[in-house]
Amino acid sequence: MLIKPLKQQVFLTTWKVSTRFNSTANAASTLVAKSSSSSLLSSSMLPTGRVSTRFNSTLVAKSSLSSSSSSSPTGIVFMNMGGPSKKEETYDFLLRLFQDGDLIPFGIFQKPLGKFIAKRRTPKIEAHYEEIGGGSPIRKWSEYQCQKVCEILDKTNPETAPHLPYVAFRYAKPLTEETLAVMLKDGVKRAVAFSQYPQFSYSTTGSSINELYRQTLKHDPERSIEWSIIDRWPQQTGLVQAFANNIKEKLAEFPPQVRNEVIILFSAHSLPMDIVNLGDSYPAEVAATVYKVMELLKFSNPYRLVWQSQVGPKPWLGAQTAKIIDKLEKREDTKGIILVPIAFTSDHIETLHELDIEIMEEAKNPHKIKRAESMNQNELFISGLADLVKDHLQSGKKYSNQLELDCILGGERATDTFKHPSELFGKH
Amino acid sequence: MLIKPLKQQVFLTTWKVSTRFNSTANAASTLVAKSSSSSLLSSSMLPTGRVSTRFNSTLVAKSSLSSSSSSSPTGIVFMNMGGPSKKEETYDFLLRLFQDGDLIPFGIFQKPLGKFIAKRRTPKIEAHYEEIGGGSPIRKWSEYQCQKVCEILDKTNPETAPHLPYVAFRYAKPLTEETLAVMLKDGVKRAVAFSQYPQFSYSTTGSSINELYRQTLKHDPERSIEWSIIDRWPQQTGLVQAFANNIKEKLAEFPPQVRNEVIILFSAHSLPMDIVNLGDSYPAEVAATVYKVMELLKFSNPYRLVWQSQVGPKPWLGAQTAKIIDKLEKREDTKGIILVPIAFTSDHIETLHELDIEIMEEAKNPHKIKRAESMNQNELFISGLADLVKDHLQSGKKYSNQLELDCILGGERATDTFKHPSELFGKH
Repeated sequence: MLIKPLKQQVFLTTWKVSTRFNSTANAASTLVAKSSSSSLLSSSMLPTGRVSTRFNSTLVAKSSLSSSSSSSPTGIVFMNMGGPSKKEETYDFLLRLFQDGDLIPFGIFQKPLGKFIAKRRTPKIEAHYEEIGGGSPIRKWSEYQCQKVCEILDKTNPETAPHLPYVAFRYAKPLTEETLAVMLKDGVKRAVAFSQYPQFSYSTTGSSINELYRQTLKHDPERSIEWSIIDRWPQQTGLVQAFANNIKEKLAEFPPQVRNEVIILFSAHSLPMDIVNLGDSYPAEVAATVYKVMELLKFSNPYRLVWQSQVGPKPWLGAQTAKIIDKLEKREDTKGIILVPIAFTSDHIETLHELDIEIMEEAKNPHKIKRAESMNQNELFISGLADLVKDHLQSGKKYSNQLELDCILGGERATDTFKHPSELFGKH
Repeated sequence: MLIKPLKQQVFLTTWKVSTRFNSTANAASTLVAKSSSSSLLSSSMLPTGRVSTRFNSTLVAKSSLSSSSSSSPTGIVFMNMGGPSKKEETYDFLLRLFQDGDLIPFGIFQKPLGKFIAKRRTPKIEAHYEEIGGGSPIRKWSEYQCQKVCEILDKTNPETAPHLPYVAFRYAKPLTEETLAVMLKDGVKRAVAFSQYPQFSYSTTGSSINELYRQTLKHDPERSIEWSIIDRWPQQTGLVQAFANNIKEKLAEFPPQVRNEVIILFSAHSLPMDIVNLGDSYPAEVAATVYKVMELLKFSNPYRLVWQSQVGPKPWLGAQTAKIIDKLEKREDTKGIILVPIAFTSDHIETLHELDIEIMEEAKNPHKIKRAESMNQNELFISGLADLVKDHLQSGKKYSNQLELDCILGGERATDTFKHPSELFGKH
């Protein structure tokens, strides 16, 4: 995919701040106005991956302070699966998704079967996006979060400032290749790939890394960007504390006399058993997040980890969210249920449609069921992300001690990628 | 099963200490002599469930101090699946195990199919017990641990002293019914059912609770014993610290230059997917133990949670321990593997035979593979158990906030048992 030209380019000290006033930017402004944040900054997304900043006096003052003409910028790249920002992008999104053998392995039938499924599912999924406002908000939230993280990092870790925010999605715009091109133009020499999946799966974070490697070979064969990765953070303090707070807020909506009986269902995207049985890290790391959140809540309530979004006839990891809700909500002794999307960091179709619409529609007692807020613009969460990046930058580590084993166990059938993570990130 | 008469009964203050000098007792003495504990006490097991104490002056002095004639004893009952202490008990053990629908649900074929499988597997399993010394050591270790815990509790929690140690196995002697009878004779009015599965599964701890309920209806219909239960403790401090220490000890056996590359494989008994998909707590709680241990080790090494002991053609939770080892040990870049039995608290056939013999026999590079010690007589572990019981007794809680939901999700097909845990334990 070609990189669209930037409409405006403004140089600020050594790095560029791009602005683009369009409907996305306006949406983002509205978002910031709604936000509880006191910041005056608003952020929008370039079509090509870099989060642009509509600068004002506050930003200029800060940037001048934190950057020097001698330092090259540090790219902070939020990696995620993404989602179609407009429903018209749905087919392309689904096609990339179902043709990704790292995510759903179809073997030699990957390309044709992926195309067949994508085509067949498009109308239904387009309708779902229509129902949640015409597209996925994941890009909007990713831009917002990454922008905020960079602002914090400029203050807390001036030695690597300025920090430039980018987003790279695996199946939707901005794609990795687009973002990489912008980063090269921006003169980024050092970048942190920051997986927005808190829990590692070879099928999600692994797939994003593979794509980063492929696109690096194509677009940065001379390796002018030095990469490192934050590949997992299942118990990051800000993350688990924000989850605990969001659950407490939701618990407070139930009458005091039943509050402690409300069942907390942590729902994570499921995995095909084919992938679980390879020794994928994901189920155990999701469980680690859940346990830590419950520890913060002093195990005050019954809870369970359940799994959503199964597709197709093959066995996936259960128990299935919908089945467990179906079983529980009918019971008279079930006073309430709180759904917690525990493996996503912003709203998208699996929360806004699958949990909020599909499950509610099928429930006989929808009044019993509430959903905890997603992280979205949560300040505690965002400040946790900034802490995490700071610690990562200061540690000098290229990737976690787990990544090599993840690639050995999960990567047997992966195509066109590295044999060892050091080929992308350098020596551990 | 009838209760065998005690050969000797000695009254000590208000409670009985029974002694029985036989080969089991001698084995236990040897064990204590080998133990790193400085205690002079040795323990042995009555055939009927109560851990007897060969008393000496130390014990007499302590017991006189901690018990008073007005207080009735508190029973501490270690519940576990058990194992045949002699290989001749193998068939009975397997028959009970495969006929337990809570553990392996066969539906209406439970009885005949359970019998068929038990019969067919007996010769092979007898041979395995022969290879590990003629029987399972699980009874010996359970006696030892429970005895020690009671000794500590008499000091740390004198208000509920004296504490009497018991063991109740689900499939081997001493069975729940035998232990219950001894407890009634001992005048126990208050008892703690202490599941020795640190992570809750309806198929293990749930099955033991169901059996306790059935036997209570039969043998204590007037409910003279007031029960509470410790139903899960996946991150108990002593447990996870002991695991971390045992792993460190094993890591130290590898050369310093490869030590950090050694792969830690936490191996837990697997579950049929039928049970996992009901929403069983076990997989997530095992993962919680693993994560905490790795946290204590500062995530120094690559690790993975894997699952062992699958039986039969139905799908079980993976990745399978044996398959992952097979994949890893052949690789040149695998410098070493440490196996950690993470869901068992003492050695038995799954550690001593499945891990130590079967896996080693099949390995091409057995020198690369080491196994971390089981908890067995680990002092840190035992002192952790005593802390846990003390906290439980002081909390006044009957069972955890999770147990009711466990019974709702897991107990749909359970037979002859309660509808709600309060029927056994009283109001939560």
